[in-house]
Amino acid sequence: MIPERLTRLRAEMAKRNIAIYVVPTADFHESEYVGEYFKARKYMTGFTGSAGTAVITMTEAGLWTDARYFLQAGKQLEGSTVTLYKMGEEGVPTVTEYIEKTLKEGEVIGFDGRVINDGLGNRFAEIAKAKNGSLYVEEDLVDLIWEDRPNLPAEPVWILEEKYAGESTKSKLERVRAKMEEKKATIHLLSSLYDIAWLLNVRGNDINYVPVVLSFLALTKDTCIWFVQEKVLTEELRAYLDENKITTRPYESFYDYVGNLSKGEVVLLNKNVVNYRVCHSIPEGVSVVNEVDPTVLMKSIKNEIQVANIRKAHEKDAVAVIKFMYWLKNNIGKIPMTEISASDYLEEMRKEQDGYLELSFDTICGYAAHGAIMHYAATPETDIPLAPEGFLLVDSGGHYYEGTTDITRTFALGPLTDEMKADFTRVCRSNINLAATKFLHGCSGLNLDVVAREPFWEVGLDFKHGTGHGVGYILNVHEGPNGFRYKQTPDRSEGAILEEGMVTTDEPGIYIEGKYGIRTESELVCRNGEKNEFGQFMYFENVTYVPIDLDAIEPSLMTETERKRLNDYHAMVYKTMAPYFEGEILEFLKEYTRAI
Amino acid sequence: MIPERLTRLRAEMAKRNIAIYVVPTADFHESEYVGEYFKARKYMTGFTGSAGTAVITMTEAGLWTDARYFLQAGKQLEGSTVTLYKMGEEGVPTVTEYIEKTLKEGEVIGFDGRVINDGLGNRFAEIAKAKNGSLYVEEDLVDLIWEDRPNLPAEPVWILEEKYAGESTKSKLERVRAKMEEKKATIHLLSSLYDIAWLLNVRGNDINYVPVVLSFLALTKDTCIWFVQEKVLTEELRAYLDENKITTRPYESFYDYVGNLSKGEVVLLNKNVVNYRVCHSIPEGVSVVNEVDPTVLMKSIKNEIQVANIRKAHEKDAVAVIKFMYWLKNNIGKIPMTEISASDYLEEMRKEQDGYLELSFDTICGYAAHGAIMHYAATPETDIPLAPEGFLLVDSGGHYYEGTTDITRTFALGPLTDEMKADFTRVCRSNINLAATKFLHGCSGLNLDVVAREPFWEVGLDFKHGTGHGVGYILNVHEGPNGFRYKQTPDRSEGAILEEGMVTTDEPGIYIEGKYGIRTESELVCRNGEKNEFGQFMYFENVTYVPIDLDAIEPSLMTETERKRLNDYHAMVYKTMAPYFEGEILEFLKEYTRAI
Repeated sequence: MIPERLTRLRAEMAKRNIAIYVVPTADFHESEYVGEYFKARKYMTGFTGSAGTAVITMTEAGLWTDARYFLQAGKQLEGSTVTLYKMGEEGVPTVTEYIEKTLKEGEVIGFDGRVINDGLGNRFAEIAKAKNGSLYVEEDLVDLIWEDRPNLPAEPVWILEEKYAGESTKSKLERVRAKMEEKKATIHLLSSLYDIAWLLNVRGNDINYVPVVLSFLALTKDTCIWFVQEKVLTEELRAYLDENKITTRPYESFYDYVGNLSKGEVVLLNKNVVNYRVCHSIPEGVSVVNEVDPTVLMKSIKNEIQVANIRKAHEKDAVAVIKFMYWLKNNIGKIPMTEISASDYLEEMRKEQDGYLELSFDTICGYAAHGAIMHYAATPETDIPLAPEGFLLVDSGGHYYEGTTDITRTFALGPLTDEMKADFTRVCRSNINLAATKFLHGCSGLNLDVVAREPFWEVGLDFKHGTGHGVGYILNVHEGPNGFRYKQTPDRSEGAILEEGMVTTDEPGIYIEGKYGIRTESELVCRNGEKNEFGQFMYFENVTYVPIDLDAIEPSLMTETERKRLNDYHAMVYKTMAPYFEGEILEFLKEYTRAI
Repeated sequence: MIPERLTRLRAEMAKRNIAIYVVPTADFHESEYVGEYFKARKYMTGFTGSAGTAVITMTEAGLWTDARYFLQAGKQLEGSTVTLYKMGEEGVPTVTEYIEKTLKEGEVIGFDGRVINDGLGNRFAEIAKAKNGSLYVEEDLVDLIWEDRPNLPAEPVWILEEKYAGESTKSKLERVRAKMEEKKATIHLLSSLYDIAWLLNVRGNDINYVPVVLSFLALTKDTCIWFVQEKVLTEELRAYLDENKITTRPYESFYDYVGNLSKGEVVLLNKNVVNYRVCHSIPEGVSVVNEVDPTVLMKSIKNEIQVANIRKAHEKDAVAVIKFMYWLKNNIGKIPMTEISASDYLEEMRKEQDGYLELSFDTICGYAAHGAIMHYAATPETDIPLAPEGFLLVDSGGHYYEGTTDITRTFALGPLTDEMKADFTRVCRSNINLAATKFLHGCSGLNLDVVAREPFWEVGLDFKHGTGHGVGYILNVHEGPNGFRYKQTPDRSEGAILEEGMVTTDEPGIYIEGKYGIRTESELVCRNGEKNEFGQFMYFENVTYVPIDLDAIEPSLMTETERKRLNDYHAMVYKTMAPYFEGEILEFLKEYTRAI
């Protein structure tokens, strides 16, 4: 099947004299996850993972993906004629290195200019130029050969009421326009689906788990034009847009709009987010202020109404997860359970909650050795039964009208070794120490990450992922510009100064390959504390109200301060959640939030 | 005196139609400290502090300086007609804001193009351009009116032998040339006196406390031209330069050399360091790679011979400081002592050491309330007697053939309050916790600073300075690109990834205005530790071998881990230093390094 598709793509390449065709995993908006319409790379290679880039020449086809997918990609590429390039492994060229090496004098690199951002597109242009070659970016060649391609997503759009958003669209538009004026920009082009949804107080369902609306937006001092698929515009929505002086145009007409901008206009946009075709549609004489969208910082700082809602969302979510924990601890070894059936039970508990919308990401429910696989999602093929021993790692979350949750708890299903307890306790120390940090305003997650790493680094251990990410509000569960991470990576925007109202996860872990994985994740809301001669002190409010499994804690491995921090956390959890329960489950909660 | 000088300067300004003349505190090389020849700002205003900028118009004269100098400047400007602008205070314009506001249509801003770097010079050019004005940068107007101006410094130059430098000039030149090739540069222009001294393995004495040689350097693939004052070239030095294929030209001819670069050359230089006149001498057709000099990172990474030498230098320095501590503790209240006499005694002790060259900076010896003044240096006017009570803060260091030291110890001269002990103990915890940090390669001081801040931040305290700076090797005691600091300031280069061989100070403090100051400072050498599946772990070797005054420690305020860290440090100090002493002073050392 795949070889046949490659043959047809190569025929289209040949017609256009294209030597190398690049098919990334992306939509037209640089979204982290993409809808079915956009899974061209999966269509061309058969590899179903969430990240990867295909590069196709007349004789070769390669798939580049990262370590978490080596095994899966290896299997799925069997018989496809597609070679797996293991990113990050020694001696393996990157996509650009491969293209640089493979492209011959005068040859053409092709890609759909809408699925590659301007930065990467320009890199390809440089490579082509150095070989006196050129780019071909006008057409989506995969579309020409893809029979039965799903339609562009166009799910129903709904308005996020102000009691949930905490700020009107009018007010948000004013704030963004003030920023445009500051930067002397006459037009602001928005391409990020998250930022558009935040700005307009609308939500949709055009990406799995990410309730956004496929669209572009152009903002001037006086006008706000939303480029959106006509079919999603209900009467209610039209009235809402009218009221906010927002006009609409067809989604596809955005490129023409950009192409017709008048000389002298100053466009504010972020070339790392806006696609190559948009950037290259800007006419001569229009200048560009290439900066991060002002909405990025604004949307990361949750207002007080949002923060109050977020607490409510987390209480509801905690009801579901505590019920799950109770069910798990009481039934393990007594009734049949598998990773999938456990996930399903947890999802049922969430669905019972008032205001629940959907999961905020694909639940990771990994038992024993599966817990050590960083992005494990059980499938019928990998699903295994749960037994009354070892660890079950469950990383899950939901969207509610009141906000988005992301929580990981690792549960002891039975007896644990001393080593397992030591590891679990180390992860717990890391999690509660970061949550307890007080700091001066001006710090970013770059400064604070070491607090979470210390319990690992002091003994030569580490976890190979960031300690935390920002969380969207009924948007992408992974949201910048805040995060906890020690490495400065210019292309990741997670180094923002922590401001009151930012929400960041705190999720250290330990992964013992072939044995077990442990992760404990809470969400922390950044709050203003004392202000004195030294400045504005800040602290975190922990809004995740689910016990950290005391069955797996070895108190003697914690300092007195750490035990107090854990006890304080559990006392807060009990106080917050006790009103939701009674009888046996209340006793259960009491037991699992006891002081140690 | 000052008004008369201003009148004469204004006459020169009038002749040239200059409306605003700027006199910064700088030499031609953006050095941190400057020699007497370069103290034009002091000459024009009477203010003697180490930092400040004078701005003179036909009717006004202003001096901008920072908080540590408000008091001193206020006094010194009395009767001068110069207005003090307190930098950082609310409502006080910056120098550029003042110039922007004051400059009228078509007017001229003047400054000596050699004492302002290219970045700032271009900012002034923009301001002038916006008013259809221009710059006048060809002449040093202060020089025209400054009678008896000291000569340009031209102190004897000496060669730093390879047994001290640890690497030959030949090898260093090769490494820099390889970097030039990497960056496709055909010429590298060096202006930093520190970097030139490091590269050529020469030292001089052209800045107080900073043994550098006033010079520029131009490096190509085949040539190395040193622009240096002829009179410093001894026969020995000429032979050394010949041997290394380094030619010399007159210091002043550097501008002409730059002005005559051939079209097509690619110049590597750092516009934040190279002065405005040099940058504006570069002819059209010559392209510039504007980057940090490769020598900056190279010189910060001390080689193994240097590290071995640094240990020796610190042992010698510790002999001096321990003798001082012994003298202080035994004689306080018995013989007359003042801040100055104590500093002098300490300097005498250093002078006794073999291989001692000079102090590495002006000793800070602040008793009681003077300890709280951040950059206090006792003068005959401020000098006060020491009494057997309270704290004496001594921040000092020396240059030795084996390296440069920087140490702060705060000594209890007699009874302390509980609050004083609590503060001293907090500073000690901060110092030893940072020194004990283990971390993964990839961290910078930005990541680790929080370890030192935690004992302060957890109770709403802070110290308003960086936690540490890199240390030069018989060069500037303050050296980038490493440091410990939590704020990201793009113009300070202290955020480098910590590499094996980098030396950084660890100097937290507490300053109680009007009462006392406490600072404890050690130097930490970054070392490679364990390398495993998670990466290269790093740790610090503490090379400062002087007790932290146990008379001021309250052990109950430390955790068990912290007490162990202090005890381990003191055991190491005793083991290292005991061989240098005998009798009473050995007993003293033993007592002050005892386990608590």
